[in-house]
Amino acid sequence: MTAPFNAQGRKPLPPGFLDAVRAAIGERLGTGEAIRLQHGSSETHFDPVLPDAVAFVHSTEEVAELVRLCVAADVPVVAFGAGTSLEGNITPVRGGLTIDLSEMNAILAVHPADLDCTVQAGVRREQLNEYLRDQGLFFPIDPGANATIGGMASTRASGTNAVRYGTMRDAVLSLRVVTPDGKIVRTARRARKSAAGYDLTRLMIGAEGTLGIITEITLRLHGIPEAISAAVCAFETLQGAVDTVVQSIQIGVPVARIELLDAAQMKACNAYSKLDYPEQPTLLFEFHGSERHVEEQVATVREIAGDNGGGEFLWSNRTEDRSRLWKARHEAFYAAMSQRPGAIGWTTDVCVPISRLVECIVETQADLARSSIPATIVGHVGDGNFHVVFAIDPAAPQEMKEVETLNERIVARALAMDGTCTGEHGIGLGKQQFLVDELGDAVDLMRLVKRAIDPKGLFNPGKIFQP
Amino acid sequence: MTAPFNAQGRKPLPPGFLDAVRAAIGERLGTGEAIRLQHGSSETHFDPVLPDAVAFVHSTEEVAELVRLCVAADVPVVAFGAGTSLEGNITPVRGGLTIDLSEMNAILAVHPADLDCTVQAGVRREQLNEYLRDQGLFFPIDPGANATIGGMASTRASGTNAVRYGTMRDAVLSLRVVTPDGKIVRTARRARKSAAGYDLTRLMIGAEGTLGIITEITLRLHGIPEAISAAVCAFETLQGAVDTVVQSIQIGVPVARIELLDAAQMKACNAYSKLDYPEQPTLLFEFHGSERHVEEQVATVREIAGDNGGGEFLWSNRTEDRSRLWKARHEAFYAAMSQRPGAIGWTTDVCVPISRLVECIVETQADLARSSIPATIVGHVGDGNFHVVFAIDPAAPQEMKEVETLNERIVARALAMDGTCTGEHGIGLGKQQFLVDELGDAVDLMRLVKRAIDPKGLFNPGKIFQP
Repeated sequence: MTAPFNAQGRKPLPPGFLDAVRAAIGERLGTGEAIRLQHGSSETHFDPVLPDAVAFVHSTEEVAELVRLCVAADVPVVAFGAGTSLEGNITPVRGGLTIDLSEMNAILAVHPADLDCTVQAGVRREQLNEYLRDQGLFFPIDPGANATIGGMASTRASGTNAVRYGTMRDAVLSLRVVTPDGKIVRTARRARKSAAGYDLTRLMIGAEGTLGIITEITLRLHGIPEAISAAVCAFETLQGAVDTVVQSIQIGVPVARIELLDAAQMKACNAYSKLDYPEQPTLLFEFHGSERHVEEQVATVREIAGDNGGGEFLWSNRTEDRSRLWKARHEAFYAAMSQRPGAIGWTTDVCVPISRLVECIVETQADLARSSIPATIVGHVGDGNFHVVFAIDPAAPQEMKEVETLNERIVARALAMDGTCTGEHGIGLGKQQFLVDELGDAVDLMRLVKRAIDPKGLFNPGKIFQP
Repeated sequence: MTAPFNAQGRKPLPPGFLDAVRAAIGERLGTGEAIRLQHGSSETHFDPVLPDAVAFVHSTEEVAELVRLCVAADVPVVAFGAGTSLEGNITPVRGGLTIDLSEMNAILAVHPADLDCTVQAGVRREQLNEYLRDQGLFFPIDPGANATIGGMASTRASGTNAVRYGTMRDAVLSLRVVTPDGKIVRTARRARKSAAGYDLTRLMIGAEGTLGIITEITLRLHGIPEAISAAVCAFETLQGAVDTVVQSIQIGVPVARIELLDAAQMKACNAYSKLDYPEQPTLLFEFHGSERHVEEQVATVREIAGDNGGGEFLWSNRTEDRSRLWKARHEAFYAAMSQRPGAIGWTTDVCVPISRLVECIVETQADLARSSIPATIVGHVGDGNFHVVFAIDPAAPQEMKEVETLNERIVARALAMDGTCTGEHGIGLGKQQFLVDELGDAVDLMRLVKRAIDPKGLFNPGKIFQP
């Protein structure tokens, strides 16, 4: 996959550049192969490409200083958080300097009355929620991985709670960003809404670091609900499971999470997590609210599930039971990979209007049935978003090619249904042609914006689209 | 206010331009003074500036054709919906062609299973809700005026329901836009979320027609709730009213609307709408959900209101009672203006973190108390957003100057509290300096985007910022 990007060529760092970086951040500069490999590798199927150096920054001002050095010396610059993205989003295909923000991990302010907080970009999702718990607050966006908040903003992450709480697009009130001209800007104030000029906050969210480097994020928070219940229910058919989702949402049940696991995924989960769930299409739910309201939600959805061929509706509001019920979902990726020890993972991600979801998944399953490569389906079905997780044998190079073809079919099908080629993973390296298939001339508009803000094309070059 | 913008000069239309427009749209071209005055006037205090001509378009393709003509001939182009904006947003300060989209008012598709619909830009909010009612669906954004959906998108409108359902930023899934190069692009697919490239949808929302002309909008819809209750409660103090709001939101009550009217506004409403509410700070509520859940919400908020000095908590779930309870709010602007027959209205709009809202309103009231100009306060307090409505005597020109000074103080105070100079009305002509005060160097980033997408500066020129 990386060949066309490497083919753009990478230039050696100009003389004196690393000395200038060291003058700015001291010994927090890594040039050894191990550290460069770690910052050039992906969790999935993308070949590693090493940055020339990795800078561990401690402040927005340091980022601005490094950006000015990079721009003056024409050195590409890539922001790095936790490295958990799935489409090669942080692979430094033209080398240059990777700026690692993971040590900028301070929670700068929490405003309980305003239900917001401001954090540095390197703060991790789980760290934030642990910090907030005692104040009765939580941050709902949960993409699975313990990603950094900066990385989640940059890829417009969402995950299991998005059906109720939205995505990073909705969760962010304001950003502090270092722009390619080396300035530090704030995209908005802390008000909960604003009509003041262009929505620079949303422009930066999902830009994958191609328009600047996010260093601080002000986030909306939510009060931890009085009651939380989890439920699990297996269905005779996929149609029955998805109809349950559609009807629950239409009737206005504010379900906090609804996850679908197909029969193949349930089989993998049973084996990996030592569970004994029926190996059928299964929905996992979470309900948030007052005790009474949660009970009412559970009763409503249980009835809808029953009408749609759902089996036993297991539910509980005890934390330990909830954790057990959700264990299958949380370990789904590892379960899928464990079907083939040593396998390389490839996770694709499409999102369609929910009325097309059954058709889209059923046709995808038919594709998968014709392949010998182990593949499972998990989905944030309340949004119409699902993933296929392939476990590829690294010793069988033709499998990579086969998955590429399967992936193309999955995306083409989603686009034909007026869906998107990525619900939440972003474009990165892997989906650039699909972006053009999806949005056509609108991609030229993105290029105009990119060129205006990053005229030298140094910010995470080779991502989202080619210049 | 308009002097600096007129000072940019306006050029006469080039010869043959109107003939070319007529060739494209036939007789749907207005050049008479009445039609030009209507399209150059504002509902508030901005002086009228007339466009050279007004084109009534019937299709996106016609808009694209006119845009190409305007760009080729260097003619400014302004999109017009219902003309209900409040900051001079559609005033054609450099003349040129106003494109009136009000006859593009077809509802193109409704997808009940997906809870979305696609409409032409000239569809009005009330028209859409009347159309949707039989299908059990509604579109929640309610800025008060019966605005067009295109205009609401362009100004990032919100209003009374935003505390529960968000603003136009959240309500729009996708846009069809004619860009300054005369192309027609679609900014996103119909999926409920996407991480595919830059968020062009959000870039266009709130851009006030300066980056292109929105011609079609795909909107999220909601199921009409099983039960709707309204409530009204007067408070001894403003602090008590706002504390009720903050505590209700923090505890997680999903109130659909919470509106504050100050004592002056209640007095005006009683007089205008023949009501007999206590002339005290008053909250109006609306609760949506199942019968049981709505009852629970009412009980919770009633208790919180009681703890904060609230008086009688009048509530009802009957439609006619609801309408009566909300009558005061719906007629608030006219009530405020009726204090001075023939007055010119000036409505300002700030939004602050909710923890600062009491302080912000109380200090503002102190300012108003020192002025002789009738002024009332209404607010979407769940968001921290409030308006001051001034009724200015047109025969007393110094009053305009006085309100200008009061407005500057109100905005400066909101900014000092980390708020925004506009929660929902936009920047238009009226708030350009405040935008710079609010976002500083970030405004330069907006200018870069503007210049890249509209290099000739022809789209709604003179709005949001100066080139």
